[in-house]
Amino acid sequence: MLERTLIDTLLRPLARHPAARGLGDDAAILTPPLGRDLVLTHDVLACGVHYLPADPPSDVAWKLLAVNLSDLAAMGARPIGVLMGLGLSSAEDDAWLTAFTDGLGRALEKWEVALLGGDTVAGLDRAVLGLTAIGEVAHGRALTRRAAQPGDELFVTGTIGDAGLGLAIARGDADPDRYLLNRFRRPEPRLAMGQGLLGVASAAMDVSDGLLIDAQRLAAASGLRLAVDLTQLPLSDAAAARTPRADDALIERATAGDDYELLFTAPPAAAAAVAALAAACRVRVTRIGSVGEGDGLSITGVGGRALRPARLGYEHGGGGST
Amino acid sequence: MLERTLIDTLLRPLARHPAARGLGDDAAILTPPLGRDLVLTHDVLACGVHYLPADPPSDVAWKLLAVNLSDLAAMGARPIGVLMGLGLSSAEDDAWLTAFTDGLGRALEKWEVALLGGDTVAGLDRAVLGLTAIGEVAHGRALTRRAAQPGDELFVTGTIGDAGLGLAIARGDADPDRYLLNRFRRPEPRLAMGQGLLGVASAAMDVSDGLLIDAQRLAAASGLRLAVDLTQLPLSDAAAARTPRADDALIERATAGDDYELLFTAPPAAAAAVAALAAACRVRVTRIGSVGEGDGLSITGVGGRALRPARLGYEHGGGGST
Repeated sequence: MLERTLIDTLLRPLARHPAARGLGDDAAILTPPLGRDLVLTHDVLACGVHYLPADPPSDVAWKLLAVNLSDLAAMGARPIGVLMGLGLSSAEDDAWLTAFTDGLGRALEKWEVALLGGDTVAGLDRAVLGLTAIGEVAHGRALTRRAAQPGDELFVTGTIGDAGLGLAIARGDADPDRYLLNRFRRPEPRLAMGQGLLGVASAAMDVSDGLLIDAQRLAAASGLRLAVDLTQLPLSDAAAARTPRADDALIERATAGDDYELLFTAPPAAAAAVAALAAACRVRVTRIGSVGEGDGLSITGVGGRALRPARLGYEHGGGGST
Repeated sequence: MLERTLIDTLLRPLARHPAARGLGDDAAILTPPLGRDLVLTHDVLACGVHYLPADPPSDVAWKLLAVNLSDLAAMGARPIGVLMGLGLSSAEDDAWLTAFTDGLGRALEKWEVALLGGDTVAGLDRAVLGLTAIGEVAHGRALTRRAAQPGDELFVTGTIGDAGLGLAIARGDADPDRYLLNRFRRPEPRLAMGQGLLGVASAAMDVSDGLLIDAQRLAAASGLRLAVDLTQLPLSDAAAARTPRADDALIERATAGDDYELLFTAPPAAAAAVAALAAACRVRVTRIGSVGEGDGLSITGVGGRALRPARLGYEHGGGGST
């Protein structure tokens, strides 16, 4: 498909927000909401690295949007719009592009996000898809990784390790399971939860590279030590059925990454607010540890054993901010 | 180089703006300037498509920033910050990355732009570099392609065709010339000129895909017809020496692209303001045609001949907004 056709036929119909100017100007023009801060993130998905060539194109579009919105969720921001950089190869034929933009359109509608602009380039060896997401949050109120306090409790949303199992399934390395595969291909950004955590959580981030490595990053950003009890790790039924109650198995789940759940800290007095929020958002929230003085992580396994895993997660840069 | 090393050692020192949060959070937090609109664009440069593998890495960084800032210039916006998506292959070794980020740092400083965030991914077959630029402009005042008026004059900044000749030189297809090569590798976004044109120009865009195809786009966006006199095409001395005064040669310059000059329209009464602005910005500005009723382009060549070139420029999507 000619890039001009891709833009005119498939992308322009998605760019209905006035700021996008019908993709007909050099740039988008956005009037920022008054008294709000903007939250900006850019994540890249490369074919063969972050998704597999056989993944359904609509799921690739979903994931490209979701991983970026997850960064906004971690700051408590409401998404406004996105710009995309689509680097395409000959593998992304007309059928692929049609299914991709169709899925993109549905995902944009679901999360009420506007397509504001972007760029396309054809002729690559494989697809490299970049997306910048812009969100807004009350001035000075954004959640960060830095403000955890000693005595806070450590929570995580949803379940951990599903996406890692889903990736193994997608690769043909594990027995099929629709739920787990879906958790790898269509992560759910915790937008409502993130916005609800404003004023409740002391610090937050999203879990993209593995629960343990991301917890270590939160600890470092706050200048404190996080205690993580792996026996409290929230597992889905499907993951639990594949996870013997043993340290090695729990560590595998907690280092697999691609969860796109929220990891956050809150003072003990906020426990009721956290529970109420979880109920309102219909999101499972599990207390998995606590915050103390010091630095780094202390990880506890089965029987209270102190664990020192050789590897805490992915080191590929991940997250939103480079 | 490990991506974590790239970020910690080379990129973080460039991310000094408070909004970047030291690249240590999930996203950047930007307090937008009061009463201003934001202008947002995203352009991708792929190795082998937009630049050559042998191009100096610092020039690649310059060009990545410049082509995006050129979109902001076309709207009359002042740049604020950028987010980058760096897709890297094994060809971008430590020396390349060090030279790239060094050049990036100098370009960011030159244009007073903040590095706000981004993402990196390694292991690609070749580099694909995306950049989102954010600028600001007085509310409702941004220049667009849509508001040219019948009777307006058509202007272009700088000189046209240099970058096309520079590309041929970089490819080894033409005799070396430092000036022309530099015009391909280090385009100059016309930021001061663009901001000065607010309230002076009626419509504007940047010339990225070829003067003629971009003029056609401006004509279409404004619903008018542009007359372009190719005998008025501004050529640098170096380009003039390689351009016989013949229609074919002039068309080649006017369809080569990568110029990153501003194409704009202004009423005849604004001629003095345009001249004063050109002098203040030390940018050559040339009247190359006029705006009339109708649609499309009328192109005039040597001796007043009407020309209908088979090709007006690149159709690769170009520009800023997809």
